[in-house]
Amino acid sequence: MIYITRRERFNAAHRLFRSDYTDEKNLEVFGKCSNPNWHGHNYELFVTVRGEINKETGFLVNLKTLSMLIKSRVIVKLDHKNINLEVDFMKDKLASTENLAVGIWNELDESVRELGAELHCVKVVESENNYVEYNGK
Amino acid sequence: MIYITRRERFNAAHRLFRSDYTDEKNLEVFGKCSNPNWHGHNYELFVTVRGEINKETGFLVNLKTLSMLIKSRVIVKLDHKNINLEVDFMKDKLASTENLAVGIWNELDESVRELGAELHCVKVVESENNYVEYNGK
Amino acid sequence: MIYITRRERFNAAHRLFRSDYTDEKNLEVFGKCSNPNWHGHNYELFVTVRGEINKETGFLVNLKTLSMLIKSRVIVKLDHKNINLEVDFMKDKLASTENLAVGIWNELDESVRELGAELHCVKVVESENNYVEYNGK
Amino acid sequence: MIYITRRERFNAAHRLFRSDYTDEKNLEVFGKCSNPNWHGHNYELFVTVRGEINKETGFLVNLKTLSMLIKSRVIVKLDHKNINLEVDFMKDKLASTENLAVGIWNELDESVRELGAELHCVKVVESENNYVEYNGK
Amino acid sequence: MIYITRRERFNAAHRLFRSDYTDEKNLEVFGKCSNPNWHGHNYELFVTVRGEINKETGFLVNLKTLSMLIKSRVIVKLDHKNINLEVDFMKDKLASTENLAVGIWNELDESVRELGAELHCVKVVESENNYVEYNGK
Amino acid sequence: MIYITRRERFNAAHRLFRSDYTDEKNLEVFGKCSNPNWHGHNYELFVTVRGEINKETGFLVNLKTLSMLIKSRVIVKLDHKNINLEVDFMKDKLASTENLAVGIWNELDESVRELGAELHCVKVVESENNYVEYNGK
Repeated sequence: MIYITRRERFNAAHRLFRSDYTDEKNLEVFGKCSNPNWHGHNYELFVTVRGEINKETGFLVNLKTLSMLIKSRVIVKLDHKNINLEVDFMKDKLASTENLAVGIWNELDESVRELGAELHCVKVVESENNYVEYNGK
Repeated sequence: MIYITRRERFNAAHRLFRSDYTDEKNLEVFGKCSNPNWHGHNYELFVTVRGEINKETGFLVNLKTLSMLIKSRVIVKLDHKNINLEVDFMKDKLASTENLAVGIWNELDESVRELGAELHCVKVVESENNYVEYNGK
Repeated sequence: MIYITRRERFNAAHRLFRSDYTDEKNLEVFGKCSNPNWHGHNYELFVTVRGEINKETGFLVNLKTLSMLIKSRVIVKLDHKNINLEVDFMKDKLASTENLAVGIWNELDESVRELGAELHCVKVVESENNYVEYNGK
Repeated sequence: MIYITRRERFNAAHRLFRSDYTDEKNLEVFGKCSNPNWHGHNYELFVTVRGEINKETGFLVNLKTLSMLIKSRVIVKLDHKNINLEVDFMKDKLASTENLAVGIWNELDESVRELGAELHCVKVVESENNYVEYNGK
Repeated sequence: MIYITRRERFNAAHRLFRSDYTDEKNLEVFGKCSNPNWHGHNYELFVTVRGEINKETGFLVNLKTLSMLIKSRVIVKLDHKNINLEVDFMKDKLASTENLAVGIWNELDESVRELGAELHCVKVVESENNYVEYNGK
Repeated sequence: MIYITRRERFNAAHRLFRSDYTDEKNLEVFGKCSNPNWHGHNYELFVTVRGEINKETGFLVNLKTLSMLIKSRVIVKLDHKNINLEVDFMKDKLASTENLAVGIWNELDESVRELGAELHCVKVVESENNYVEYNGK
């Protein structure tokens, strides 16, 4: 069993808030992240998959294929987008890094299996001081 | 003459576009950065000042004072904000990193002089692949 | 189950030595880290907590609360301090990174539980080449 | 149980290819990594060992000893070398990062045990976007 | 006058040696960098251009255009290549980082001018400990 | 004219204070950096030299020679030391990063000339947020 990790990046706008809260309540709970005019981040996404090394290629998976999978299923939906308004898998969810990590896991889980590997961890880095990890359980 | 640099950070949303362009024209000129729903970045700001070492303290300037100056005059206006909509010194300007660097220079120039130093360079890092530097000339 | 990590930083002096060793013996066992006049580091501390996502907020824990907890219970005791002489939870312990990680774990374990999460990992980075991780078992 | 990690670095040339493939087939499977004239990387190697803290020293293992072990058993064989042509433990293997991680594990496993610790993880970083982890199972 | 910098990356093999030296002499002068079987690096290339901000776009140059220029004139020639054997602008030159920086400058100088800017600096980072800068004079 | 930069690192303890100040005055002027029990940093030192490329070697200077020069004249005096108590070229000076940069410049200036190059810049990075540059004028 070996683990391989691919990093991809995306820039996006978001806002943390609940429409059933007042602006004051949103500010109290979510702080400056609730700014109604949005703010944004350079997100880093680390996708770790696990499995056996293919004897023919020496690869667990072809990293180019893995990269294209992540780009086509996740990055294209998030990069230079507004997470609250434009991302199908985040619809009706709070745009927190936690929910983002779970959402990205669900976008990737099955397609990684089709590559002959298993999704092991989705890590979303929101800033140099904060990151979230999810491993599907 | 010695140079000292302080890094501060801010997260913000922005959009590159001209209101006198159609959406198609904006997309053509500014690419995905023109997304009407905004996107955002983790910006890093490096402020370099120059001057003589104060013999009494061994400092060019007290870094805590410099940090507080940058925070009060620049970061508080930009952090978790929308650069197009909420930043006074960017009003009526394209929210490019170039204009941001010039705008930040103008916010800091005089107050750095009051600290007994001269502003030497404002560097704005928009992503790990792009940054802009301005030195007032 | 989701994992969220907060990074905080502190600068501190320390020395690796045993008072029951001679200086020669200390030098032999601890190398230049035994310098009687101290040396120091920029330490990075990564605190990972785990738990369920709160449906109301989309958060595992509020990162601002977690950050303030780490600062009030750990950083304030270590930052710009001498680990051997001034840190209560390191009293009578060798000031190694290993003992530091265990000591920080003990400072945080209960208070993280009061936030509704569980402490998962304390990672102390002493230099770009060395780090220690502890997960309480 | 505590975990300590030491980073070492090496620069090496390699090529991904099978001698039983044509150049066209190698290009199809391995992409530009199959270039017959080689290419190379600045590899980072993170070796994590685990065990109990030695009460006498406060150390899990002496990092200087661990560093010298990694250098003498691994780095000296890889640094400024051609992985395909010159590295004994990679002989007759595809020079993939996956195989490199497994090969390095096998070089270190027993000698780490002689230090009184257990090898926990070998992580090989090939670029800022790719890394492989192996933990012996 | 404003300065904008774009980072691009390439992986390449090289060897430092003179064909009119013996292997022993090459080893003496160039150290392990003279290994006849090659070694390699993850190079980072920082290209800084300078000029006036275009009032219509807020840009000095469109970074996408600059990136494509660097890729088409430099990266495509260097990435996953052997610098000694395959790079036209390094033909008959020692494959040092110094010569590489000058070579890249010459590849870019004129085409940057066609973008309406001036090439200001070419910085080639060979490892985390070494880099070379050239500004054409 | 080309510029080459070598990074070296050192860990040291220091304290910012004047013996002719009271503890209260030191605290007021130097903040927590005046802690009488010391604190410390992982310093990074970037030494940039300039000159012509040697046609015989393709080098400005041999980086191994430059590295050994920096280590023997600067790093050995600073690494794992107390800057206030143990560093000859900092004797009777405030242990600020500014004075450190000037002190290191003076240690290196002549010996770099003996290598056939000119010292261009000494950059001392004290933390990820602060650094000082000095170029001898």
